[in-house]
Amino acid sequence: MDYYSAQISRLIESLAGLPGIGVKSAQRMAFHILDMPEAEVEKLSSAILEAKRKVCYCRQCCTLTDEEICPICKNPKRDQSVIMVVENPRDLAAYEKTGKFEGVYHVLHGAISPMLGIGPADIRLKELMQRLQGDVSEVIIATNSSLEGETTAMYISKLIKPTGIRVTRIASGVPVGGDLEYIDEVTLLRALEGRTEL
Amino acid sequence: MDYYSAQISRLIESLAGLPGIGVKSAQRMAFHILDMPEAEVEKLSSAILEAKRKVCYCRQCCTLTDEEICPICKNPKRDQSVIMVVENPRDLAAYEKTGKFEGVYHVLHGAISPMLGIGPADIRLKELMQRLQGDVSEVIIATNSSLEGETTAMYISKLIKPTGIRVTRIASGVPVGGDLEYIDEVTLLRALEGRTEL
Repeated sequence: MDYYSAQISRLIESLAGLPGIGVKSAQRMAFHILDMPEAEVEKLSSAILEAKRKVCYCRQCCTLTDEEICPICKNPKRDQSVIMVVENPRDLAAYEKTGKFEGVYHVLHGAISPMLGIGPADIRLKELMQRLQGDVSEVIIATNSSLEGETTAMYISKLIKPTGIRVTRIASGVPVGGDLEYIDEVTLLRALEGRTEL
Repeated sequence: MDYYSAQISRLIESLAGLPGIGVKSAQRMAFHILDMPEAEVEKLSSAILEAKRKVCYCRQCCTLTDEEICPICKNPKRDQSVIMVVENPRDLAAYEKTGKFEGVYHVLHGAISPMLGIGPADIRLKELMQRLQGDVSEVIIATNSSLEGETTAMYISKLIKPTGIRVTRIASGVPVGGDLEYIDEVTLLRALEGRTEL
């Protein structure tokens, strides 16, 4: 990147460190930033720094928030006795978008992965177990349908079962609108195993 | 984006304003930023603001740089009498990467586009004409091979021809390694027109 001056190279390198951003995209972004009005650039720069400085974990569900207790946990309309366990805040947002889930969440910030050396102690499991001391009727495990997500789901269910609390797992199968011919075999077998009466 | 707290939403919105970044990518980037060490985030945030504040146009070739005269224009080894005209600093970088061009550049910052209402006065043409008062032997027009790029090339060549300075245009044809069957007809015809003796 010697073709650009020091400041521009530094900007491109910083942007290229973000996920999904290669050098070409970083270059496009950098020149776009240099083309933006200074006030806009200040907003972007401070949004990045402020978010990092002010965002913390919700004391209850461990999601990222800028308050001590996140708006979902604080909402009196939510059913505190039903906890949906997700891997990260984006998964939480995905379920919130459905607008149909009325319980609360617990964000693990990861999944157990022996391959990557991530064990039960590296995710927010202890915090989940502590919450179960309270009045909880059901734990819905909504970790991803990947090897790590399934491992985590199995591990959590074994941990919770002895407490007598109901543990469920979201269904796995053919996505709505999905074309059978393009769906992988594992998903097709899951859909078959999970078939329900009509 | 009500599923995220105010600071996170603000960050996602700011990032989603960048070119090629949709809401999903912005979310991924935002959570990655929240996961980065604070020192790294400070570096990113300041790289953005510093670049915007310190980067200016080279007084000679109009590229973006953080000095009054860019390193290429200042380099005594470069042949100041050969000027390659490009649309933007990324195109300049593309030719610099070849490592074979020993002249200097002129960055137009755009191309003439009647469709978008961009006329000759909206790009750095006046600056180019001023440079031609000096000792210039050749102007190589390396604007893109698009409608706007071609229009700009034609316009510039007509403007320069009366001065007696040699004006050339980079060749247009089949890219090296390109598979003929996937190349559009216009390019194929250009390649045919521009054929050379073997």
